[in-house]
Amino acid sequence: MHRLQAFREMRARVPQKAFNWLVSFNSSRCIHSLPFATVNVEEISGSQPAEVHNLVQGKWTGSSKWNTILDPLNGESFIKVAEIDETGIQPFVESLSKCPKHGLHNPFKEPERFVFPNLLYLMLGDVSVKAAHMLSQPKVSDFFTRLIQRVSPKSYQQALGEVFVTRKFLENFCGDQVRFLARSFAVPGNHLGQQSHGFRWPYGPVTIITPFNFPLEIPLLQLMGALYMGNKPVLKVDSKVSIVMEQMLRLLHDCGLPVEDVDFINADGKTMNKLLLEANPRMTLFTGSSRVADKLAVDLKGRIKLEDAGFDWKILGPDVKEVDYIAWVCDQDAYACSGQKCSAQSMLFMHENWSKSSLLRQMNDLAARRKLEDLTVGPVLTVSFLTFFGVVTEYKDNQIPMVLDALERMHAHLTAAVVSNDQLFLQARLAEVIGKSVNGTTYAGLRARTTGAPQNHWFGPAGDPRGAGIGTPEAIKLVWSCHREIIYDFGPLPQKWETPAST
Amino acid sequence: MHRLQAFREMRARVPQKAFNWLVSFNSSRCIHSLPFATVNVEEISGSQPAEVHNLVQGKWTGSSKWNTILDPLNGESFIKVAEIDETGIQPFVESLSKCPKHGLHNPFKEPERFVFPNLLYLMLGDVSVKAAHMLSQPKVSDFFTRLIQRVSPKSYQQALGEVFVTRKFLENFCGDQVRFLARSFAVPGNHLGQQSHGFRWPYGPVTIITPFNFPLEIPLLQLMGALYMGNKPVLKVDSKVSIVMEQMLRLLHDCGLPVEDVDFINADGKTMNKLLLEANPRMTLFTGSSRVADKLAVDLKGRIKLEDAGFDWKILGPDVKEVDYIAWVCDQDAYACSGQKCSAQSMLFMHENWSKSSLLRQMNDLAARRKLEDLTVGPVLTVSFLTFFGVVTEYKDNQIPMVLDALERMHAHLTAAVVSNDQLFLQARLAEVIGKSVNGTTYAGLRARTTGAPQNHWFGPAGDPRGAGIGTPEAIKLVWSCHREIIYDFGPLPQKWETPAST
Amino acid sequence: MHRLQAFREMRARVPQKAFNWLVSFNSSRCIHSLPFATVNVEEISGSQPAEVHNLVQGKWTGSSKWNTILDPLNGESFIKVAEIDETGIQPFVESLSKCPKHGLHNPFKEPERFVFPNLLYLMLGDVSVKAAHMLSQPKVSDFFTRLIQRVSPKSYQQALGEVFVTRKFLENFCGDQVRFLARSFAVPGNHLGQQSHGFRWPYGPVTIITPFNFPLEIPLLQLMGALYMGNKPVLKVDSKVSIVMEQMLRLLHDCGLPVEDVDFINADGKTMNKLLLEANPRMTLFTGSSRVADKLAVDLKGRIKLEDAGFDWKILGPDVKEVDYIAWVCDQDAYACSGQKCSAQSMLFMHENWSKSSLLRQMNDLAARRKLEDLTVGPVLTVSFLTFFGVVTEYKDNQIPMVLDALERMHAHLTAAVVSNDQLFLQARLAEVIGKSVNGTTYAGLRARTTGAPQNHWFGPAGDPRGAGIGTPEAIKLVWSCHREIIYDFGPLPQKWETPAST
Amino acid sequence: MHRLQAFREMRARVPQKAFNWLVSFNSSRCIHSLPFATVNVEEISGSQPAEVHNLVQGKWTGSSKWNTILDPLNGESFIKVAEIDETGIQPFVESLSKCPKHGLHNPFKEPERFVFPNLLYLMLGDVSVKAAHMLSQPKVSDFFTRLIQRVSPKSYQQALGEVFVTRKFLENFCGDQVRFLARSFAVPGNHLGQQSHGFRWPYGPVTIITPFNFPLEIPLLQLMGALYMGNKPVLKVDSKVSIVMEQMLRLLHDCGLPVEDVDFINADGKTMNKLLLEANPRMTLFTGSSRVADKLAVDLKGRIKLEDAGFDWKILGPDVKEVDYIAWVCDQDAYACSGQKCSAQSMLFMHENWSKSSLLRQMNDLAARRKLEDLTVGPVLTVSFLTFFGVVTEYKDNQIPMVLDALERMHAHLTAAVVSNDQLFLQARLAEVIGKSVNGTTYAGLRARTTGAPQNHWFGPAGDPRGAGIGTPEAIKLVWSCHREIIYDFGPLPQKWETPAST
Repeated sequence: MHRLQAFREMRARVPQKAFNWLVSFNSSRCIHSLPFATVNVEEISGSQPAEVHNLVQGKWTGSSKWNTILDPLNGESFIKVAEIDETGIQPFVESLSKCPKHGLHNPFKEPERFVFPNLLYLMLGDVSVKAAHMLSQPKVSDFFTRLIQRVSPKSYQQALGEVFVTRKFLENFCGDQVRFLARSFAVPGNHLGQQSHGFRWPYGPVTIITPFNFPLEIPLLQLMGALYMGNKPVLKVDSKVSIVMEQMLRLLHDCGLPVEDVDFINADGKTMNKLLLEANPRMTLFTGSSRVADKLAVDLKGRIKLEDAGFDWKILGPDVKEVDYIAWVCDQDAYACSGQKCSAQSMLFMHENWSKSSLLRQMNDLAARRKLEDLTVGPVLTVSFLTFFGVVTEYKDNQIPMVLDALERMHAHLTAAVVSNDQLFLQARLAEVIGKSVNGTTYAGLRARTTGAPQNHWFGPAGDPRGAGIGTPEAIKLVWSCHREIIYDFGPLPQKWETPAST
Repeated sequence: MHRLQAFREMRARVPQKAFNWLVSFNSSRCIHSLPFATVNVEEISGSQPAEVHNLVQGKWTGSSKWNTILDPLNGESFIKVAEIDETGIQPFVESLSKCPKHGLHNPFKEPERFVFPNLLYLMLGDVSVKAAHMLSQPKVSDFFTRLIQRVSPKSYQQALGEVFVTRKFLENFCGDQVRFLARSFAVPGNHLGQQSHGFRWPYGPVTIITPFNFPLEIPLLQLMGALYMGNKPVLKVDSKVSIVMEQMLRLLHDCGLPVEDVDFINADGKTMNKLLLEANPRMTLFTGSSRVADKLAVDLKGRIKLEDAGFDWKILGPDVKEVDYIAWVCDQDAYACSGQKCSAQSMLFMHENWSKSSLLRQMNDLAARRKLEDLTVGPVLTVSFLTFFGVVTEYKDNQIPMVLDALERMHAHLTAAVVSNDQLFLQARLAEVIGKSVNGTTYAGLRARTTGAPQNHWFGPAGDPRGAGIGTPEAIKLVWSCHREIIYDFGPLPQKWETPAST
Repeated sequence: MHRLQAFREMRARVPQKAFNWLVSFNSSRCIHSLPFATVNVEEISGSQPAEVHNLVQGKWTGSSKWNTILDPLNGESFIKVAEIDETGIQPFVESLSKCPKHGLHNPFKEPERFVFPNLLYLMLGDVSVKAAHMLSQPKVSDFFTRLIQRVSPKSYQQALGEVFVTRKFLENFCGDQVRFLARSFAVPGNHLGQQSHGFRWPYGPVTIITPFNFPLEIPLLQLMGALYMGNKPVLKVDSKVSIVMEQMLRLLHDCGLPVEDVDFINADGKTMNKLLLEANPRMTLFTGSSRVADKLAVDLKGRIKLEDAGFDWKILGPDVKEVDYIAWVCDQDAYACSGQKCSAQSMLFMHENWSKSSLLRQMNDLAARRKLEDLTVGPVLTVSFLTFFGVVTEYKDNQIPMVLDALERMHAHLTAAVVSNDQLFLQARLAEVIGKSVNGTTYAGLRARTTGAPQNHWFGPAGDPRGAGIGTPEAIKLVWSCHREIIYDFGPLPQKWETPAST
Repeated sequence: MHRLQAFREMRARVPQKAFNWLVSFNSSRCIHSLPFATVNVEEISGSQPAEVHNLVQGKWTGSSKWNTILDPLNGESFIKVAEIDETGIQPFVESLSKCPKHGLHNPFKEPERFVFPNLLYLMLGDVSVKAAHMLSQPKVSDFFTRLIQRVSPKSYQQALGEVFVTRKFLENFCGDQVRFLARSFAVPGNHLGQQSHGFRWPYGPVTIITPFNFPLEIPLLQLMGALYMGNKPVLKVDSKVSIVMEQMLRLLHDCGLPVEDVDFINADGKTMNKLLLEANPRMTLFTGSSRVADKLAVDLKGRIKLEDAGFDWKILGPDVKEVDYIAWVCDQDAYACSGQKCSAQSMLFMHENWSKSSLLRQMNDLAARRKLEDLTVGPVLTVSFLTFFGVVTEYKDNQIPMVLDALERMHAHLTAAVVSNDQLFLQARLAEVIGKSVNGTTYAGLRARTTGAPQNHWFGPAGDPRGAGIGTPEAIKLVWSCHREIIYDFGPLPQKWETPAST
């Protein structure tokens, strides 16, 4: 059938209002504006403060109480955050309680409310396609990069890195990849008609609490992971930076994410604690300090996954080479992002050979050139701090066992690095250092570092059953789902079965 | 070379004492006695009480304080358990603290102390081969079956079932299957010389606490799982039944398990709590009541996996068929093992069609025939209890949503059963019931039951991030190891790399 | 009203097809050119014939010999294909021989020629992102849909379906998903320093030969699969439809695929056979007739994977329901795409209950309404053929064993369908029919069909070690890579090792 | 002193071989007969020749034609093999044809004939348990070791190694591990009620043809793999050594393997070819020469998996160390098992540093000490051959590219070795050599070798789609099953579905 004729026939069957609406809906999808955004990133200022809202039960809401965020560069009140206090948590409690324990969706459940012809798994794959594409647009990428910079002083490159990782993560779960996360397995049973099936099951209502240091990557990756597996999350990001995820949620809605599927709350710790106790989410993902983590673990009776602070060490091998590079990586590991990375280098074990090198001086020089203007260091750090570099310890060849003892006595095993390409050292020591340590994400080799949480490999602490990972298929399945086994046992009964005499 | 000649040559090279020892060692491995056993199961009695010892740092020890276990059949003091009190826990604390966080072994670590030519993974595969074979010997199987019966009144068939599952579990981890549990994966990195590897890593020092109802299966499966993954466990079994695992440990030692690799403690809850707080194990597996589970979760700040009580429901579909069989399964689910199974049927939703059937009467009859003599019911239950069958509720066709509401409001989601082969009912309702519930082990079909924890499929609660599984490769890896990622990044550096201007 | 909510409400009231059309109609105004394309799909005609070139060693080339393709609708010579004859194969042989057996890339190899900072795996992930996005553009999607229609008469909807599946496939391998295909595993060895690693390894130079019926989906999915795993393919598509992949290759180049990585040849069977014998590719994927498949298997000594013709059966169960739907699916299975699908329904086993229904008449009616004008049937079929529907056989309840015997005697086990929602029939018969048949892609249930090769599940024959699959991660790994095991064994030697006396 | 500790201390002081011998010497006193065996291994001789029968349709049969096997040590006719000629193949053809394409069992099919309460998967797990235990008995182990030695001259240690690997393989598939091989996966479909399941499906009637060099390990591992996945094999082992598997089949029957499930034929190549053409097995596993492999590939139209000869190379790195060990491994790789291993070292690339070492002289010395008496070399090799060691080539540091070119030009890529612990060499060259070669089983490191086919890692050629593996779960699934996808699509239909206007 000719295309124009087809159009006319279709047209005749579509209500006028729907037609108009669709035309306008599609036309507006033009990249020359950012239709999802409610702020203009470059114009946020004391005189034109941005507003951050809450989202609950599908509605964006303000608050009677507005928290004021100061511009880290000039101290102006440049963002107003609608903060929920203890009197306002009821809608959030209600919203969570609407989600049953079996989740928004699971391999056996499809919400009736939807007009989508396809499973939610496919809808979420589509959301990922669209959101990844949005983030690949320079204008959108720049918007989020700059927004991150406005609230979390880091260099453009560092902030862009966060947007890039977020986009790559979304690319990883395009198309059918969300439903592939729900892949189950089955094994023949004991007799004909019996078969056992292992599924990954959602928790239902869950909470995500994330810190200020990665305003986009951490909450977005955990949020999508939670959704992919069928959970309904309420998300709380540190208010200082929550504007980033507030805008990101609007982008996701534009890409098709149902507004009812995620709640978003701005609140202080006390209010959040009350919400947790009243709503009793089935799982809480917390990224932040070990102190709060331990408190939450107690309050929530262990129904928690944690990515808490790391006491992250780095060992420099005996090969003094590529000093420029090593110094630069040390600087990045220690200071980029205001030194507030959970994976920041906390302790440096330096082979004695390095003491004669220019390493420490170069590290000092690099630290010294960090400045507020380009956001390569946040204003919270004083210059005097910059001259001190964590803990630096020298070791001699025969002192590796002492280094290993020190590693064993540390707590919080997030990242680690063994920096060397000296093959004799690596042969003699690498397997030993790896085999006698437990840091969850351990880099080895000349290019080893302690920071870096890309989307392509596991990132998270080890050595703790409460430990969370982020971003990879393994991490998503571990954090956001549990095992459920369904055993079909349709019989038939054994021939001539009769009630056993007694047992 | 001729065999006899070979023998002579060998003989000449072996020290006399070693030769004698080896000859005697091998000769004693004769199935006509149970060389590992220190008790004669049929002769334990008030006049010849058995003794249960503790094992710590490779040595069996008594205690100044002996707890007395009463024969459940006649009330005689027939077992003396050497109980550790708070003053005696120090050796256990020390023993745990000797095991580093990276475990007894891991893919990068092999203990030096061993004379085994092979990795511990292979040694544990060999232990499993030998222990499985031992349990396949009728005399050994009978020994443990009777020992279970002596302390945990259940029928011979039920107790034998425990021994059988234990043996099958051991068969599953013969040969290379332990090292296959340590299978890792790797993915290409971002540039040449970079590659990320995901491992399952042990926790190191861990605790296992198990209840009285399955004296062999639960502790043995969890113990071996912990060992397979490289942990060093201290095991505490309810003192009433700990004699079973005490004897089993001796069997394992005979099969080659190093005596230092597992500690075994008899203690009351208060002492155990103190031990946990002082030794601070990296992970604790607790099987038992929800109340204690929650307390432990708080005490251990969530470093715990739980298999706690289940409020386990069963739904009978509209097809009233095979009443004899259904009644018998209900009786087994409710009463076998003294009604103390964590997976015991707690609530029965019965389609109204069943009300006209003989089901309830038959269930009563079956319960009534249970008697102390054959241990089909434990003495703790009174006959009056037997006439009451948990909670029985009728539902009509249109009331399934109400049933689902009831399921959603329950706590402790261990097992469940949907009993029906009515295909219209199953088609209309099975996916809905599964999709709207979260019980970790859910059976469906005519032969569905709520009890049963075999070695071939996952058994454990769902809906709780603290939930443990038992026995399968998935369960072992989940409970007894965590993810660790090693990223090799040997470079080379990008050509002509130089320190970035600033970022 | 909120914008997205409004959209959803409208959306619910608009027929799917109208919605798609409107979206495409509106969006198409935004994309002003197809820079990759060398033809204008609507203007190809006898007076403005399109040209199809070959691609070898990175260069598009013509030929001294042009094959003429007739417009299936009006018989005009509307496409000129530059065909390579036996004298022209040398550049292709050379090009293949430049690719070593270890492929263009593998987990240990990265081509030096590349300026990409990243591994080829990432480059191919990027190509997939971009190509998927291109195909999501209505104008591009319409271009390929119409191009398919011009050469392979099928309805717009059917052709669009091919483009849609292709796009979804590309979405599945965005971001890191290509490198995830190269995921390897490792297992601890027998002693410290030994570890075995299992990889999927490319074949190097390979050939892909695909037929006319799916001009885009089959070659594109196989081509990308071959590339993802590290092979260098030469692609030959049936000349009648090769214009589609010729244009698609240009799109891929635009998306970043290096021009040297795929060769593209137009040739007749004899020439192609000569090329195969001279170039001796390590693997050949052939989709087409069983006769040619068997000849190729002999010529290539079995170095081949096949997706050949299927003798595909359908069983209708006893439940005569949804006759309209069943008739329509039968019509689709038998005739859509000119009846030339490899998965077309060849034999219908109809429960006797259906004989009283209107099914056969409806099937005739549906077939009769197919017409050249809308390309719902190709011109090669005569109307008389349309009144005959493959082989239709009735069976009675007790004749299922005879049906199963018939299935066992068939050859070419590609697809099959058991159409029923009658639960008694399914319970009694479905497991039996599945358990006693081997068709590689078997559908069961009311909506079962014999056609359909989506990107989300395996599609391919079973029962033949030469059988190929298409599109899924499993299929890609099976067809386009082989297992390779690397065992690291760095020692050390056993202490005091000395040369054994003799063995 | 504690018993086990005592054992360990002794153990540490006793040479391995002495230990093994003593264990066997002592234990062997306990097992008084080999009920399965029909021959006495030490008494087979010209005057008391052993007889080898065929097994078909559950019956052991003789033949009118007896082939005579000569004792390789003294030339006596010591074994009579009942050989089937072309007139006798009919029962074998019939037997194969009785097995349908869907196999003896599969996840949906259970043979009715069986009285086993459990699935065949479990029965085969039990057979493995029992057979592994049998082989762990010194008397049984000695029986097969000596039987191998009688027909395939190799040292006791080498023959024992075969028995050991066979036993370990069987241990790997104890208990539930056979059904775990049948593990399937499932993915949610496009709409509610749709789900796709991927299974590994048997081929049904299959053939296994194996050579003389490993009379037990190769046929047993392939045979059990075929059975585990549900196939019915006919097994043909080279008549010179078929007595080993004939006895092994009797052992398996004793362990519970149904006699009808495997046929066993002694025949010459021409007869076997006729059988293959008449019976048309769905899959044939051939281990043997490349010439026969290629002929079979043509005859069977590619329905074949091959483990054919390898042209196996070894590269010695620049580090001249542990010369005794390297020389001994070279000798083992080249000559153990009469130089007839498919994985035997064919070509040695020796870094020039080695030319000054004693390596070549030591290799000559080792070869020279091989002698018929202890079966360390077979009588077919002449002494003069022993002084020549395959092809030995020296290379200089800068000639690695030439070496890689040579590797690329070889055929038959089975095994390879890169022998070095020089980390600079490994860093610079190992990834390159691995990345630019395709040998299926490649060893790297000081202890690298070219021979060795254990049960714990993949062994087989790469670079060929016909390539087979042996023994591991991956190998079994690849060789003995194919992918089958079942898609459940029970609906419901979309609401208000109506026949589309036309498409």
